[in-house]
Amino acid sequence: MTAQVIDGKAFAATMRGKIASHVARLKEVHHVTPGLAVILVGQDPASEVYVRNKNKSTVEVGMNSYEHKLPADTSEADLYALIDQLNADPAVHGILCQFPVPDHLSERDIVARIDPAKDVDGLHVLNAGLLASGQRAMVSCTPLGCLMLLRDQLGNLSGKNAVVIGRSNLVGKPVAQLLLRDSCTVTIAHSRTANIEEVVRGADIVVAAVGRAEMVKGDWIKKGAVVIDVGINRIPAPERGEGKTRLVGDVDYASAAEVAGAITPVPGGVGPMTIACLLANTVTACCRANGFPEPEGLTA
Amino acid sequence: MTAQVIDGKAFAATMRGKIASHVARLKEVHHVTPGLAVILVGQDPASEVYVRNKNKSTVEVGMNSYEHKLPADTSEADLYALIDQLNADPAVHGILCQFPVPDHLSERDIVARIDPAKDVDGLHVLNAGLLASGQRAMVSCTPLGCLMLLRDQLGNLSGKNAVVIGRSNLVGKPVAQLLLRDSCTVTIAHSRTANIEEVVRGADIVVAAVGRAEMVKGDWIKKGAVVIDVGINRIPAPERGEGKTRLVGDVDYASAAEVAGAITPVPGGVGPMTIACLLANTVTACCRANGFPEPEGLTA
Repeated sequence: MTAQVIDGKAFAATMRGKIASHVARLKEVHHVTPGLAVILVGQDPASEVYVRNKNKSTVEVGMNSYEHKLPADTSEADLYALIDQLNADPAVHGILCQFPVPDHLSERDIVARIDPAKDVDGLHVLNAGLLASGQRAMVSCTPLGCLMLLRDQLGNLSGKNAVVIGRSNLVGKPVAQLLLRDSCTVTIAHSRTANIEEVVRGADIVVAAVGRAEMVKGDWIKKGAVVIDVGINRIPAPERGEGKTRLVGDVDYASAAEVAGAITPVPGGVGPMTIACLLANTVTACCRANGFPEPEGLTA
Repeated sequence: MTAQVIDGKAFAATMRGKIASHVARLKEVHHVTPGLAVILVGQDPASEVYVRNKNKSTVEVGMNSYEHKLPADTSEADLYALIDQLNADPAVHGILCQFPVPDHLSERDIVARIDPAKDVDGLHVLNAGLLASGQRAMVSCTPLGCLMLLRDQLGNLSGKNAVVIGRSNLVGKPVAQLLLRDSCTVTIAHSRTANIEEVVRGADIVVAAVGRAEMVKGDWIKKGAVVIDVGINRIPAPERGEGKTRLVGDVDYASAAEVAGAITPVPGGVGPMTIACLLANTVTACCRANGFPEPEGLTA
């Protein structure tokens, strides 16, 4: 048996199409254009690429993109003044600050400064609390992407045994909350878990978000399980030439694909979902801010 | 094998003793007396008993108790004015509003009005978020009580398989967060869980918080497991006379006690821990408000 490959890139493209239609409708019917503000402090080259991609994707679906590039030595006070201004700006429905930021700034304090209703990255403690108590939250993009792929693959998730490997605030814990909300039986496994292979072997759904290259082996996977691999790890690839590297997930793809019913590849699985979910969250935030109905299929 | 009975009443008494010492030290060294304000709206007889007990226990450990009894027709504006006043009062370190409240008031909005740092019931969404993201939170009293009993029984919980039955915001979900923080492998089971007996049979720790009388049977329990029964269900007890009732937990005590290593009875298990944890939270809130070190053994 060879697993179906879950094409995150294609799914994300379809999702961006839905978002574009929704944005067009918001403009036509309500004369409102969702707007996403992205703050970049400093000139980290990787961050500049991410911000450029976010901007490009935002504009492509018909939304407004507001880029704010600040020098690396921007003071906390100046950064907060900008955030306060964006919080108050009715044309801005989503705000994110690209991380990492220079050392003199605190990521936690920056997130806390953003209006939770505009926190499209879903990082604010209040959003964690809303998610944890089953209320309407802004949900982090990667966890939301995992949920979307699973719903698309399985339909109703109720009663499925789900094992989430990893307990980070960014992925593992919110994914667990989302799967619990969809009525999975959820187990959270991590570095202290005894007999982790056995725990994973009981799962209909495996979400690996632990950050260890190819840790989850094929013989940990129950036949027919759906495997979502959130890991992105760069490892040496001498077969491609001296000094070359390649990206792998937290799952040993080759052996897992022999057993799983469906599996996300790395790259091309969960990764492309992240920006699509960021755009979805911006549309959601815009609808909530204006009292419009929640956009269907774009939220948890 | 017959299980050790976990005497929550005795444990809570010991804890109240520790709290009293801590309060005495706060008074002597810092000239600060922790204060707990309890608001009761209306004359629900059960609520009046609870409030009286909380007041009595607060005073017994040397803390200040502030009771605010409001008529049943108190307006939202008047209630919020009182909460705002208590939020601003430096002599008040903990605030709780006894639920249920009359229908014209919203429990969720009342909780949201309380300063999260004084929310000794641990019900505020921000506290749920802090707990979910592993930060310093005020933790609900019943989940905290479960954690204290488990730590006392088992010492280090790291790597234990814990199954929490029930996914309520009040108990199931926060207990799962606390056990995850203590590095258990945590499974959350609930009404949609398939083969729940088998899931529970894998657990070193079982926390039952589902609200169904004697649902968890002895043959669901792994030999030697520690069983914490949060349920309090009143069932008919014709053997005690016509119309008589008795309290039972979510666990079928007689059969479970044959297999478990240790088990909480109902009543006398988790129940008595709740007020003790409320007092503990008030001391914790007082220490945090004043920048004193966290009281040892009284917090998560």
